[in-house]
Amino acid sequence: MCSVIRRVKPVQLVQAVTLRLRANTEGSADNRRFRPGVRAGIGPLRATSRSYCSRMALTEGLLFRQLFELESSTYTYLLADTETKEAILIDPVLETIDRDLKLIHELGLNLKVAVNTHCHADHITSTGLMKKRSVGLRSAISKFSGASADIHLSEGDKITFGRHYLTVRETPGHTDGCVALVSGDHSMAFTGDALLIRGCGRTDFQQGSPEKLYESIHQKIFTLPDQCLVYPAHDYLGQTASTVGEERKFNPRLTKSLEEFVKIMNNLNLPKPKKIDTAVPANLVCGVHEV
Amino acid sequence: MCSVIRRVKPVQLVQAVTLRLRANTEGSADNRRFRPGVRAGIGPLRATSRSYCSRMALTEGLLFRQLFELESSTYTYLLADTETKEAILIDPVLETIDRDLKLIHELGLNLKVAVNTHCHADHITSTGLMKKRSVGLRSAISKFSGASADIHLSEGDKITFGRHYLTVRETPGHTDGCVALVSGDHSMAFTGDALLIRGCGRTDFQQGSPEKLYESIHQKIFTLPDQCLVYPAHDYLGQTASTVGEERKFNPRLTKSLEEFVKIMNNLNLPKPKKIDTAVPANLVCGVHEV
Repeated sequence: MCSVIRRVKPVQLVQAVTLRLRANTEGSADNRRFRPGVRAGIGPLRATSRSYCSRMALTEGLLFRQLFELESSTYTYLLADTETKEAILIDPVLETIDRDLKLIHELGLNLKVAVNTHCHADHITSTGLMKKRSVGLRSAISKFSGASADIHLSEGDKITFGRHYLTVRETPGHTDGCVALVSGDHSMAFTGDALLIRGCGRTDFQQGSPEKLYESIHQKIFTLPDQCLVYPAHDYLGQTASTVGEERKFNPRLTKSLEEFVKIMNNLNLPKPKKIDTAVPANLVCGVHEV
Repeated sequence: MCSVIRRVKPVQLVQAVTLRLRANTEGSADNRRFRPGVRAGIGPLRATSRSYCSRMALTEGLLFRQLFELESSTYTYLLADTETKEAILIDPVLETIDRDLKLIHELGLNLKVAVNTHCHADHITSTGLMKKRSVGLRSAISKFSGASADIHLSEGDKITFGRHYLTVRETPGHTDGCVALVSGDHSMAFTGDALLIRGCGRTDFQQGSPEKLYESIHQKIFTLPDQCLVYPAHDYLGQTASTVGEERKFNPRLTKSLEEFVKIMNNLNLPKPKKIDTAVPANLVCGVHEV
């Protein structure tokens, strides 16, 4: 077992959610339940102190950087402990490996884990090549992804870096091996391709299931506090962050009933991702065949 | 005089910088002076608590959103007081006016001022059109920009929104009418086209002067605390933020002597911006001719 992952005893989902909500001291009361199809009012969000603001996540001693890959519109996230310098990278892209490693070097960080939120179909991960260029780095991905990696993640696992950690929440639906990564204080959620800003991942390939996706988002993401920042794997409109509260209220797909959602998702008629035939096989082996 | 701008008595630059440094309680001692050509060591940045992290700016009750316009690679910034809902927008772009106004509406904000950091040559501002669609909105730009606006900004002016404010620092060099906007707690600097991430604005048109730009950045931006976040008007490599400390240490142009900097800037041989012939005349009148 790698030192950065602490496997916690599996608990029933309802219990886990309850525990998380009880542990939440971040602000507004969050005792809502999973209520498919029950939509909040559509008026403007009520402003509460420390709500929906990417500068409002107040964890001390946490370095955070959002990086963007222009061709696939992918966000890569760098998080580190400013004291111990231990760092993790979420969803790094092959094309931007030099930029990312240069920044990590300049900031004096020690990259411990490169984690993919799922087996991507639209770009090739840099995880495998990065392992060759960054001593001690380990790759991580969901055990349900079908991909090889040093660490296979399950529900409730913790990825630690210094004094901080992210908890794994399994969010199948876009693929079977999708996970969201949630900061210990519930102030940030890296939602991969499950929940996007005012959108969500498609469900028409790679084990996609609109029913599973709807349940994953409602049970695993929308149960987080309203002010929890949502950092997706992609955005195509220049949006960099959202919040759980905003998406619960304004996401045009997830505010619908399950039946309406399934109908929407089954009629998107999207073109096949350009890189799917090369990206998926490559990403099943960390982006490079030798790893 | 508009209510959101408080004109402060002009002070000598050295005095102003001294006062700012004395007022800084954000962490590391910042008693450095402007020393052209004196470069810090090039080793990795020393990690200090609360340093160089876009989640580390700890102002309570401040909403912050970074938005991106893909064609011109422009960042637009939305800031608001979460209690009073008063909001300001920095460098909005014509092509993304609908996205920006939709977000402002959803968040229940009252947009008071749309400010341009300078008269842009690469895109048309949405300020003029936004004034028509947002009751009570006023436009702002430097008095040295040559552009019409409701508010003409000078050194030391404060743009207030609720309990928060940004202070204007004149940073000529890319154009005569460039300003940086610095948050009251010195945790964020919106540097326009003066200082970019690991780069800077070009100086070969629109009153450009490498000597002025070098002095502006060193005197007005590099005198801020190391951990002050740098939010530029553009980035072309997918970087979303930097810090004053990083740019002082790693900016490949600004770490050079004045002479070397001038030589670099005078030999960039960049192509003319595609939109300059339409953007500059339009931006001189807030982006629309009728305003």
